[in-house]
Amino acid sequence: VSTAGATVVALRFEGRTLRALDQTVLPWREQELELHSASDVAGAIRCLQIRGAPLIGVAAGYAIALELARDPGGQTLDRACRLLKDARPTAVNLAYAVDRVRAAVLSSESARPAEAALTEARAIHAEEEAASDLIAANGADLLADHHRVLTHCNTGALAAPGRGTALAVIDEMWRRGGLERAIATETRPLLQGARLTVYELRKRGIPHELAVDSAAAGLIAGGWLDAVIVGCDRVAANGDVANKVGTYGLALAAQAARVPFIVAGPTSTIDESCPSGAEITIEERDQDEVRRTQEATLTLADTPCRNPAFDVTPAGLITALVTERGVAQPVDADSLAALMAR
Amino acid sequence: VSTAGATVVALRFEGRTLRALDQTVLPWREQELELHSASDVAGAIRCLQIRGAPLIGVAAGYAIALELARDPGGQTLDRACRLLKDARPTAVNLAYAVDRVRAAVLSSESARPAEAALTEARAIHAEEEAASDLIAANGADLLADHHRVLTHCNTGALAAPGRGTALAVIDEMWRRGGLERAIATETRPLLQGARLTVYELRKRGIPHELAVDSAAAGLIAGGWLDAVIVGCDRVAANGDVANKVGTYGLALAAQAARVPFIVAGPTSTIDESCPSGAEITIEERDQDEVRRTQEATLTLADTPCRNPAFDVTPAGLITALVTERGVAQPVDADSLAALMAR
Repeated sequence: VSTAGATVVALRFEGRTLRALDQTVLPWREQELELHSASDVAGAIRCLQIRGAPLIGVAAGYAIALELARDPGGQTLDRACRLLKDARPTAVNLAYAVDRVRAAVLSSESARPAEAALTEARAIHAEEEAASDLIAANGADLLADHHRVLTHCNTGALAAPGRGTALAVIDEMWRRGGLERAIATETRPLLQGARLTVYELRKRGIPHELAVDSAAAGLIAGGWLDAVIVGCDRVAANGDVANKVGTYGLALAAQAARVPFIVAGPTSTIDESCPSGAEITIEERDQDEVRRTQEATLTLADTPCRNPAFDVTPAGLITALVTERGVAQPVDADSLAALMAR
Repeated sequence: VSTAGATVVALRFEGRTLRALDQTVLPWREQELELHSASDVAGAIRCLQIRGAPLIGVAAGYAIALELARDPGGQTLDRACRLLKDARPTAVNLAYAVDRVRAAVLSSESARPAEAALTEARAIHAEEEAASDLIAANGADLLADHHRVLTHCNTGALAAPGRGTALAVIDEMWRRGGLERAIATETRPLLQGARLTVYELRKRGIPHELAVDSAAAGLIAGGWLDAVIVGCDRVAANGDVANKVGTYGLALAAQAARVPFIVAGPTSTIDESCPSGAEITIEERDQDEVRRTQEATLTLADTPCRNPAFDVTPAGLITALVTERGVAQPVDADSLAALMAR
């Protein structure tokens, strides 16, 4: 991990194989998974070998193409769609991509449904890549006068096609010469910050520091930062945001310090059918993720744990939502509706 | 670790030896350190084998007795006092105990300064034990109508003589039958919650759950708790509190959810000479504490890290300060002055 400015490619479809960087062994090993079925892809999503709301959507789209290539009659299509949607319940992009590829297959007059699926999956992939560049530019415009940013979890090329979402903004700020430093939170339990964001920041040559999650509030209060920027797993119609657990606490700290709290994501993350954060299902993951990390045991083996993977940040704490269609500021039902109407 | 209701003894002075449970190997091993000099004790405090603001004060008091037993002429007294005070800069109890034992030695007419030191150290120890019981009772009175509490770091018998501070309150709530459940945060980087609080809660038979630090804000917002209670490393004259990093974020989350945020500690933790949190030195510890945990590596080896050990919670976020002399509520310069005048 040393090539400054290098590109990270999290996912690529070749022949009849979806190749994905195994995110559970990064940053120490760059190891590619070879996935051949919807079941392979759903499994990789469930255990976070592939993760990041936009990226798992694209992966699921390709998974349907894989499945139809194995079963051209399409008899397993509905089962595969359910399997994929059930792999992670919180991110809306997954269901969005699955529904869209499924609809493309069903409405296709082609005798080759796998090709119809692949075409649609590639279209979603290309749209998300284009969205990433626009998010980067819109966010960097918004934060032109900001120089030290904190981010949570991983929202780069390992989380979304192209350059990512929040980390794409940070990357663009750096490219434009405006960024002094990024602080990454480690993001327990699965260390997406310590492992993946640090990996990407180093690849891109961006000066950075790592801190434990609970240090962020004090660093924000202490004036070490002038912006916080995170991604999103689901944005409700009223602007409430579900994102990686810990996001809500960062928003409170940013508000208290009068530091802008920016959420970045493609509009595919906006769920207009979900009225507010109260209706978002928060996935509780395996307790062993809390009890252990990497190869280490952190507590007594049978300690009961709570392990919500996400939390909800109320719209009122969010300074702006940066999307490929533009920026919603303030974030509320009206500004989101206006954004979606563009 | 299975004896419900069992007592944890973190520290005991026997003969010419200070025996202390090595807190870096708990909860998996109950291993006693044998300390024979101020240098031994300062080393154990620096590397957190002995920790917790009130406990390190008592340990430092005994350390002076150990030193004078080795050097009855007292020529190393000043050097030993400096060494001990420098072991941790943030907790006030350490400097308080060192100054008090040193003064007792200097004003003693005894030809045996080690005995004068030991007498004073034992007095501090006994006072802190009595304070712990009073803190427990005062806190349990205050939280009589609360049943599900979240706590941070370790504030039990491993942190303060007797039953502890915040964890003593939780213990007393449980003994009185009012507690349903305690949630402990893991407390990265050194896992005092996952390792030490879980160990003590299990020893005492108190139902508990463990969560990663960044899950706390969402759990509080989600109504899973009706109080947050933490200890303190230093209370400024205006009521601002320095405590384990992450405390400030919990206070913000409690305020947002209108859940009481209680700080518990002996009045020896109140530093009337320190006007406000802005004047409290925040110790930055070794970056490797962030890069690693237990035997696991969490990020690339040379990643630059920030590792503040504490943060400052403004007095205005604190519902009440529970001490052995009573409860300050609201927490401000007047209520603290009134408490200290009792």
